[in-house]
Amino acid sequence: MSAQIKVKRLNSQDAGFKETLLSSLSLPMADDEAIEAAVAKILLAVKENGDSAVLDFTKQFDRLNVTSVSELEIPKKDLEQAYKSLSAEQKNALDVAAQRVRAYHEKQKIEAGCHSWEYEEADGTRLGQKVTPLDRVGIYVPGGKAAYPSSVLMNAIPAKVAGVEQVIMVVPTPDGARNPLVLAAAYLAGVDRVFTIGGAQAVGALAYGTKTIPSVDKIVGPGNAYVAAAKRRVFGIVGIDMIAGPSEILVLCDGSSNPDWIAMDLFSQAEHDEQAQSILLCPDAAFIEQVQASINKLLPEMPRAKVIEASLTNRALLIQVKDMSEACEIANAIAAEHLEICAADPRKWAEKIRHAGAIFMGNYTSESLGDYCAGPNHVLPTARTARFSSPLGVYDFIKRSSMIEVSEAGAQTLGSVASTLAHGEGLQAHARAAEMRLKK
Amino acid sequence: MSAQIKVKRLNSQDAGFKETLLSSLSLPMADDEAIEAAVAKILLAVKENGDSAVLDFTKQFDRLNVTSVSELEIPKKDLEQAYKSLSAEQKNALDVAAQRVRAYHEKQKIEAGCHSWEYEEADGTRLGQKVTPLDRVGIYVPGGKAAYPSSVLMNAIPAKVAGVEQVIMVVPTPDGARNPLVLAAAYLAGVDRVFTIGGAQAVGALAYGTKTIPSVDKIVGPGNAYVAAAKRRVFGIVGIDMIAGPSEILVLCDGSSNPDWIAMDLFSQAEHDEQAQSILLCPDAAFIEQVQASINKLLPEMPRAKVIEASLTNRALLIQVKDMSEACEIANAIAAEHLEICAADPRKWAEKIRHAGAIFMGNYTSESLGDYCAGPNHVLPTARTARFSSPLGVYDFIKRSSMIEVSEAGAQTLGSVASTLAHGEGLQAHARAAEMRLKK
Repeated sequence: MSAQIKVKRLNSQDAGFKETLLSSLSLPMADDEAIEAAVAKILLAVKENGDSAVLDFTKQFDRLNVTSVSELEIPKKDLEQAYKSLSAEQKNALDVAAQRVRAYHEKQKIEAGCHSWEYEEADGTRLGQKVTPLDRVGIYVPGGKAAYPSSVLMNAIPAKVAGVEQVIMVVPTPDGARNPLVLAAAYLAGVDRVFTIGGAQAVGALAYGTKTIPSVDKIVGPGNAYVAAAKRRVFGIVGIDMIAGPSEILVLCDGSSNPDWIAMDLFSQAEHDEQAQSILLCPDAAFIEQVQASINKLLPEMPRAKVIEASLTNRALLIQVKDMSEACEIANAIAAEHLEICAADPRKWAEKIRHAGAIFMGNYTSESLGDYCAGPNHVLPTARTARFSSPLGVYDFIKRSSMIEVSEAGAQTLGSVASTLAHGEGLQAHARAAEMRLKK
Repeated sequence: MSAQIKVKRLNSQDAGFKETLLSSLSLPMADDEAIEAAVAKILLAVKENGDSAVLDFTKQFDRLNVTSVSELEIPKKDLEQAYKSLSAEQKNALDVAAQRVRAYHEKQKIEAGCHSWEYEEADGTRLGQKVTPLDRVGIYVPGGKAAYPSSVLMNAIPAKVAGVEQVIMVVPTPDGARNPLVLAAAYLAGVDRVFTIGGAQAVGALAYGTKTIPSVDKIVGPGNAYVAAAKRRVFGIVGIDMIAGPSEILVLCDGSSNPDWIAMDLFSQAEHDEQAQSILLCPDAAFIEQVQASINKLLPEMPRAKVIEASLTNRALLIQVKDMSEACEIANAIAAEHLEICAADPRKWAEKIRHAGAIFMGNYTSESLGDYCAGPNHVLPTARTARFSSPLGVYDFIKRSSMIEVSEAGAQTLGSVASTLAHGEGLQAHARAAEMRLKK
């Protein structure tokens, strides 16, 4: 069916390789003034007119003709009903995924230090941090064709594990079409309330609150360009997660894998959208040829062949490297969202990786297992942001308060230090506040 | 000298109290189009012309006339020299502060889970997270009158404790004026390189890198409106810390404290700038009167009386509450940057606090001790963002990668689950990638 495609080939030994690679990674900044202006207008309307603005926009964009926002809420029993209506196979798959994601994040809550701590010094001064969950979190779930139940699990479960009391989900239902898998996932994840609203108006409602929709403290979850722009704009009033770019996979392979498996793993990113990026790093030229052959063999079988073809043609790279050590160096420069290490001793190479959202080790660890049910979160830093940010986790739904209790004795030693430094900065009230606590 | 001032008084039992309080907290959004446009232009110039743009802007804004950016670097021996030139008292105060801040953050690194972890399941599947420090961090330090050595310690030490290999400080030195305390603090904190550049051009240089100034992975530290706008704009290319608003203190007092101490603690926020906010919550009307009297008694003695007077007049509140329990509820609604609990049993009330940047317990714990040398970080969430964010910490200078190694046996159980869910989402390549790993 599809035409034969030839994926762009690079060799790390070629002159200018690093520049070519880096320029292949970046996408032009999507700075759309029309979107920005539309979003600013929608947010202002929701801020000022609350429920009535939400109703207007939902009528306009999703063609839902209701007279009150409360009619846009899906009652909890409907979520349960959606779950019960699934086939036994789907029910079991969602159950297993939810249970595994929960178990991993329970472990993370302990291991990643999401707990209060304190210590006491010799003079009785006590220092530490208090950890508390966020009160209320909003989860944006896209509607339409990109409605992903797995995304509901990945966003809601860490919040609930963190102890967030109220998780409020918004999901647009254009023309009233509801996705039972999404609602079932909300049921399993313990989402507290669901409103069938979307777009910038949903982000505004969650950020500012309306009479019917409570304001939240943080908004997470993927969305289109309008949702992303709205999240950027309300950042500061509420917390937000990262604004995600197109999905990426980087496969490091020593040439010992099944080329069909590698080709399919590259497809599994490419099928997301035309801007998704799939890259292979391999020291074995013959193996790269085999992967190229597998791509053309397997592509015609894929229902999403058109998207895959566009993505591979636009953005994929097959890169021949000197050896696996060099592959690891290049992987650190790329700082990929998903990094697969398909090699005889994957841990040997994983040790050399400093920057990646998730590292999938060994030939049996296809990235798609991580997307759905291995347990770790599938919300991962894209566009080289793994250099400084982390997978979504329990730690994103807690915050810390420093705890400081200085004893009377402590106030004497610390007081004179603080006084000296405060005078050095010209802040005399700071100094005096410390000095007043000194015994004469 | 100063005129007598009367701080705005509220009573929690009055009608409309909550609305009045919330409107008193918010500041008009500083959305200055002229600043935005200037910053966009500067960033673009630095991105395109690197060193030469940095030189031009530094000449223009700071009147430093040099011919290469390397002349703007302060050699490490100058930092050491600045430290050695301090008085014994200043040297000791900085030493104690640096040592205490380091000790606290070392403890935080352990307690806040800044370490890798992994567990193995029955079928041999291994899951976990790998923690790595950021490679390179930029610290912005304001020059001129708001040059704070304590801020250098508070930003650089957590980065170094996290294991960041290279900490690069930028500090403008208008007309070449260097602050020896700031340089000494950089020396003590282990800052690796210092450039005397500032403004949006410094943020651009750190974000994009120039021939002389290396690009970093995250930029932290306070700055003026131009610096804040520049940080917002490079967010995504690099990580940033929160954009800080004016400083705030909220004092909860049961009426048993020394009113002079409380007044001075309110001053110590107010002296920062005219927009800073100081609030007292107290159930004892007579004590509130005493604090008001102390304010007028102590104000004329303060060198920064003008700033304090403006800040107290513009933004301070003395609020009479029903009791300390209600004070805690109101404190949670305010979610202050600094919260002092001056009461007989401060921990009893601290337990009820869910939202605050830092909690200072007991009459001897003046907020100024925390600003300089108690140990916890003084970079704290402002403007109610303590509802969802935390003090700057070691955790801001590390990031996590999920580690996933699915065994052959694990790929069988997980593969069928992933396949079902992927088909449910219409992502067939995801399904096939999992199915290919199933044994026939």
